[in-house]
Amino acid sequence: MKFHYADRVAGMQSSAIREILKITQQPDVISFAGGMPAPDTFPVAELREAVNYILTEHGAEALQYGVSEGYAPLRAWIAERMQGKGMDCKPENIFISAGSQQVLDFTGKIFLNPGDKVMVESPVYLAAVQAFRAYQAEFVAVPADNQGMDTTALAEKVAAANPKLIYINPTFENPRGTTLPAERRAKVAQIAAAYQVPVIEDDPYGELRFEGPPLPPLKSFPGGEWVIHMSSFSKIISPGLRVGWAVADTDIIRKLTMAKQASDVHTNSLAQQAIHRYLSTNDLAAHIRRITDIYRVHRDTMLAEMETHFPAACKWRKPAGGMFIWVALPPGADATALLSKAVAEKVAFVPGAPFYAAERAAENTLRLNFSNSSPDQIRIGIRRLGMLLRQELG
Amino acid sequence: MKFHYADRVAGMQSSAIREILKITQQPDVISFAGGMPAPDTFPVAELREAVNYILTEHGAEALQYGVSEGYAPLRAWIAERMQGKGMDCKPENIFISAGSQQVLDFTGKIFLNPGDKVMVESPVYLAAVQAFRAYQAEFVAVPADNQGMDTTALAEKVAAANPKLIYINPTFENPRGTTLPAERRAKVAQIAAAYQVPVIEDDPYGELRFEGPPLPPLKSFPGGEWVIHMSSFSKIISPGLRVGWAVADTDIIRKLTMAKQASDVHTNSLAQQAIHRYLSTNDLAAHIRRITDIYRVHRDTMLAEMETHFPAACKWRKPAGGMFIWVALPPGADATALLSKAVAEKVAFVPGAPFYAAERAAENTLRLNFSNSSPDQIRIGIRRLGMLLRQELG
Repeated sequence: MKFHYADRVAGMQSSAIREILKITQQPDVISFAGGMPAPDTFPVAELREAVNYILTEHGAEALQYGVSEGYAPLRAWIAERMQGKGMDCKPENIFISAGSQQVLDFTGKIFLNPGDKVMVESPVYLAAVQAFRAYQAEFVAVPADNQGMDTTALAEKVAAANPKLIYINPTFENPRGTTLPAERRAKVAQIAAAYQVPVIEDDPYGELRFEGPPLPPLKSFPGGEWVIHMSSFSKIISPGLRVGWAVADTDIIRKLTMAKQASDVHTNSLAQQAIHRYLSTNDLAAHIRRITDIYRVHRDTMLAEMETHFPAACKWRKPAGGMFIWVALPPGADATALLSKAVAEKVAFVPGAPFYAAERAAENTLRLNFSNSSPDQIRIGIRRLGMLLRQELG
Repeated sequence: MKFHYADRVAGMQSSAIREILKITQQPDVISFAGGMPAPDTFPVAELREAVNYILTEHGAEALQYGVSEGYAPLRAWIAERMQGKGMDCKPENIFISAGSQQVLDFTGKIFLNPGDKVMVESPVYLAAVQAFRAYQAEFVAVPADNQGMDTTALAEKVAAANPKLIYINPTFENPRGTTLPAERRAKVAQIAAAYQVPVIEDDPYGELRFEGPPLPPLKSFPGGEWVIHMSSFSKIISPGLRVGWAVADTDIIRKLTMAKQASDVHTNSLAQQAIHRYLSTNDLAAHIRRITDIYRVHRDTMLAEMETHFPAACKWRKPAGGMFIWVALPPGADATALLSKAVAEKVAFVPGAPFYAAERAAENTLRLNFSNSSPDQIRIGIRRLGMLLRQELG
């Protein structure tokens, strides 16, 4: 029996990372491969209280169909928070999604014809590429340095390629952990407006800042009306509840809402209402400080162990927030080949190669996640990995 | 500022019914327009207990990322229940979605190229058309009678049109409330296999049977390997939790899973686990009997009032389950024009016209929902509507 699928299925693929994660999920393996929050950062008791309150006081509403745009009080809460970050927005500029990946899917759906070009950093967050590939997009890689996307190169490539979208992960970028400085943010918004190309500003990690002052979002700069800002509660409350959002022009919000009606009707009502209750009765800033205090220790532990145990030829930089450290092994090293040896030594990472969407992969790179392992696991895991690297890289 | 959207956006449209629902949601209007369950059928206390148990005993897991295929114990529960209905399936044949609309979206995504044809009943469930239109499908209407889709016409039209999918809502069909008899079910499965065309068997209402023995699903007949059966917990537990499923060949399940990875990663973990807990600790059969006992009274009340108050020239049939009664006004009557007059009289319905996807609409038809109004509201509302119909139709 052979099914005849749509042409777009050829471009869809099971996430390389998800396949790698399966390999790394063996017992006793200390895994730096995923991108999950630490479960001890979940406000379990507070969410239980919020869910109880909602089901006791508003049970019928929380279990009934809701509107596709999202739960109005939560849209209002998000609009106010986004205003606080400098974005010019009202509740009607907010679209609530089942996690921010869904905004990537729907943005692809409403903007991309087959063959349309999307500008991406190189390397780039893989699941964004996966979302857009399902609409048969093509990708144009923009080089990135220690400060994220090279905006001079971006301007040239936008002029040459006539892209439909620009995708950028400006703060504690996945996979490299870089943060785009304010001047470059201004430049991206200016390029978007000049060439009339919407920019997707994907900001899942922006709240996870360990030091330094926060930077204004791309959407707060002149030209920001061309920016679709997106974020979620996944990294600051819980990913399992699947609640994210977009901030955009109302015309784009209407199109996203139509896509949502046709796809999953609306986001889980109970989750939206419970999160709104949680936000109304808890100190989110204090909760985020608790998370960043935990992750800062994880990062510092990992960096200190890497300094001690990794061969001198390995290079990395210290991210000021987020969840990841990006490592360059010496030229010629093959991180993908190293992975199976690492798993045999009971430690795992993600090779960097799958993060290259549109140009030759740097096979000597790998990504380490520090959010989801304890300091003790980090110490043991990095020692194991360091020993392997010294053996293999000589 | 003008955004350049994808070509497919032209075919996407805000659901006509959702727009109508906005008009009908005025205070004091008794609305038979929507398709919502009665909120007093939601097992609020039992779900609160289930959610509490999950957050107390498995909080970290319920708030963490989950797998795209769905929560394994819930897949196993669904597989067993689907086996009980005669389907040959294992847990790996089950895909869990954020409500069954999402299966329509993903099925369209993995099967439909622009211009591909989908066979539909006429009239047809509007949101299915909306899901497939986003992939630029074309529709071929298959006539239906009092027993649902005419399978002789289906065979001829499949042979002529070379469609990519057949969409059918065989039990207590939305909008007309018809149920396809066993012989026609066998015939549809046979046509699917003979022409190698997947059939989407959309079954949201099958459990809401008020009388008579249940019929075997299309997927249980020879040729059933070509059937994608889909259903959800929306009508039997809660629509707000957004949990549905598909039963299909494992190759299709893999493709649906890839679509899910790229779209919303996975369905809300807490909702899946709480529903599984609810199912493990409650008597679902008794709960469904409670719902059907309530809805049977609603239906019988509505039918009795229609008999008394509607003009003799109006025609309808008694559905054996589900949520809807389909009414044909005399030829020449315009149900869309009647709606604004009805709303002025504080009663609402959905005109039948939007349910015609691929042929001239029968403007004299309308759909009445009986699930979401109390018997008292039904009595008052049908009297109002009857008075209007007698005035307008003479």
